[in-house]
Amino acid sequence: MIKINGDIKKAVSVEEVKNSKGTVEIEGTVHRLRDMGSFCFILLRTLNQVIQVVWDNEANGTPSCAEGDSIKIEGKVVEDLRSKLGFEIHGSKITIVSAVENISPVPINKGKVNLHMDNHLKYRPLVLRNPKIRAIFKIQEGLCRGFREFLVSQQFTEFRSPKIVAQGAEGGANIFKLEYFEKMAFLAQSPQFYKQAMVPVFGRVFEVGPVFRAEKHDTSRHLNEYTSLDFEMGFIDTFYDIMNMETAMLKYTFSLLEKEYKSELELLNVQLPSADNIPAIKFYEAKDLIAEKYNRPVRTYTDLEPDEERLLGKWAKEEHGTPFVFVTHYPSSARPFYTMDDPENPDVTLSFDLLLNGMEITTGGQRINNYTMQIEKMTKLGMDIADFKSYLMTHKYGTPPHGGLGIGLERLTMQLLGLDNIRYTTLFPRDINHLIP
Amino acid sequence: MIKINGDIKKAVSVEEVKNSKGTVEIEGTVHRLRDMGSFCFILLRTLNQVIQVVWDNEANGTPSCAEGDSIKIEGKVVEDLRSKLGFEIHGSKITIVSAVENISPVPINKGKVNLHMDNHLKYRPLVLRNPKIRAIFKIQEGLCRGFREFLVSQQFTEFRSPKIVAQGAEGGANIFKLEYFEKMAFLAQSPQFYKQAMVPVFGRVFEVGPVFRAEKHDTSRHLNEYTSLDFEMGFIDTFYDIMNMETAMLKYTFSLLEKEYKSELELLNVQLPSADNIPAIKFYEAKDLIAEKYNRPVRTYTDLEPDEERLLGKWAKEEHGTPFVFVTHYPSSARPFYTMDDPENPDVTLSFDLLLNGMEITTGGQRINNYTMQIEKMTKLGMDIADFKSYLMTHKYGTPPHGGLGIGLERLTMQLLGLDNIRYTTLFPRDINHLIP
Repeated sequence: MIKINGDIKKAVSVEEVKNSKGTVEIEGTVHRLRDMGSFCFILLRTLNQVIQVVWDNEANGTPSCAEGDSIKIEGKVVEDLRSKLGFEIHGSKITIVSAVENISPVPINKGKVNLHMDNHLKYRPLVLRNPKIRAIFKIQEGLCRGFREFLVSQQFTEFRSPKIVAQGAEGGANIFKLEYFEKMAFLAQSPQFYKQAMVPVFGRVFEVGPVFRAEKHDTSRHLNEYTSLDFEMGFIDTFYDIMNMETAMLKYTFSLLEKEYKSELELLNVQLPSADNIPAIKFYEAKDLIAEKYNRPVRTYTDLEPDEERLLGKWAKEEHGTPFVFVTHYPSSARPFYTMDDPENPDVTLSFDLLLNGMEITTGGQRINNYTMQIEKMTKLGMDIADFKSYLMTHKYGTPPHGGLGIGLERLTMQLLGLDNIRYTTLFPRDINHLIP
Repeated sequence: MIKINGDIKKAVSVEEVKNSKGTVEIEGTVHRLRDMGSFCFILLRTLNQVIQVVWDNEANGTPSCAEGDSIKIEGKVVEDLRSKLGFEIHGSKITIVSAVENISPVPINKGKVNLHMDNHLKYRPLVLRNPKIRAIFKIQEGLCRGFREFLVSQQFTEFRSPKIVAQGAEGGANIFKLEYFEKMAFLAQSPQFYKQAMVPVFGRVFEVGPVFRAEKHDTSRHLNEYTSLDFEMGFIDTFYDIMNMETAMLKYTFSLLEKEYKSELELLNVQLPSADNIPAIKFYEAKDLIAEKYNRPVRTYTDLEPDEERLLGKWAKEEHGTPFVFVTHYPSSARPFYTMDDPENPDVTLSFDLLLNGMEITTGGQRINNYTMQIEKMTKLGMDIADFKSYLMTHKYGTPPHGGLGIGLERLTMQLLGLDNIRYTTLFPRDINHLIP
């Protein structure tokens, strides 16, 4: 019998390698091997960087490794200002810890990956090994960290809502059905009902979790499973409190990315936007403004069309120098039953979307917290109150004025990084045609 | 048009209230109202504490609020060493921001909640408002934070795997089926295949996410949807690297809880265990040891029975003074096809469970990283290789020696807090009978 003490195997960071004197040993995958005759370049893919090793064929013999092998390599750190990392390794010993079986059928070590979408997704486990592709997901990690860290600093509590549910929060037909023992169940379209239930518990709550939409669209901006960054806060004075909280969160997150995800941002050549002074324009004003400014007659006032969102983004950029714009006061008919109507004009709601570069990345607003008001609105909409008995406990037994939002993590990633298809922003996308890998 | 600057509405912390001079305004829910004749006690439930307000009926008139109301209250902070927080508020003004419709049908403001499980779950949105109940989930937040923060410090990358999948990772019948457009799909039983695919991408990865098991057991330790804390690490030297990483993570997490979740631990009267020097005992040795020591003949060597786990916990406590024990080298037949067999004895695997207070809270081990070895094992088990083509890309195109684990968050919570039913450790439990709320 032995005892386990927690003596961990450390991963050596690039900074530690760079600052080490004498011989170092580093682990990684042979990303690329370039034979230059008397010497080779071995590009070693480590946790978050590709490190260049120079291997002297004449002194050491040709290297024993192949592209794709997992190796340990010993060598000396030598300053080299031409290298992006500021150093290279002069290798002296290679140990293969896992030999590759086959060379990757898709080129992942030549800068950009250029594949048709179908092949890209088919070979996703390999494509993700490409440094530019994996950088997307490192940055996405940073977005989630920023969201969490900022909200925790503002006394929000993280919670987890069930994904198997008895009813959809958003209504409509775009919901996945499930056999749950003898019952019919659904996959959650949003944590809406649960995050509202948590307001009287913790006051301020958030969740980062998967949501599911059975939409049959096959577009560049929809996924059938995506990650929603949700928060809900009690004791709001106005629904602008929610927009300010989001704005402050974005500022925090961007500064975290600048600090800790710099090499990934550089690799992808991304300039983060500023989230200062975001213009907020009312829905009907936005419609008319776009119609007039871009000579595009309004076709319907029911909701914003994708093309109108795009033009609003253009307007925000041109007139206010920012890729962000809040649109507020959506029509009541365009928002779910739990949305608070504007007391000054019940045809519109105390709600908003946030657009980034002309695409919606957030939907939020104030919710109805008064039981009688909620019952009246549901009755007017012809809903069966009995179906929502459990949800309505929150209202009936007391809940403060509250509101919140949901941010589509993949949309945010796509718009921040300037990608043209949302499939690039999720590791293993789920769409109408893709269930594997 | 207005501009949004990110001027946030701060939540006032208890520390800030305590340190403030003069009049403060605090927001919260009237948790309990006790009329003492000439004055009242108003217990105000805030984000994470219950604050006592003394209200002078003679000076101010009887208070205008009812239990369950969301209010703002103004008053003076007065030191009071009898109070748990060290102060109370002498109230002078109450503003009701949301009046309650009905008094809670279940008593949530009298210390412990005593309800039959069915009623407890039926009224879950209300029961969760009880300070002792919500403290469970505050601590659970801390467990997730500890897991994440520690792994990020060890250069792990957080990722998210799909929950709608084409095949189960654990095999067997306990998998939920789903209609996915024209295809048949399943709910993920574990992120196993995906976390292995991520090893050659980021080297070290983790996920905190829901998993789904269609088990028909109706026990005190099974849920049909739970949260799995998963990590997977490349370049391990032995599978003990995984156990050491878990142990170090537990130590970090417990110290985070002691620092930042002290009031919740005190409220629940919980002493956190030490994760130093955890004994690790081999499966067959453990079986025989328990049989001999506790006079309980081994019935079968296929796996550990719950009663044997319980006795192993007793043994660890008695002999080693710790509630933790690692059991290693499970039989090959008891572990999934991706588990690495022990080269010294292929009948057992390089795998482990971690038990806490006599119950399994973690399953982990080294995985097969060699393509040929994996194909051979799958063939021997009669599996159809073609079904796993996508999964096997990871092996075929190179992956380092690796392994990882999955921790059941609810089990960990239950065993740490000494709760007797796993339903108490998830906000809205899913079991064979409960799909609402």
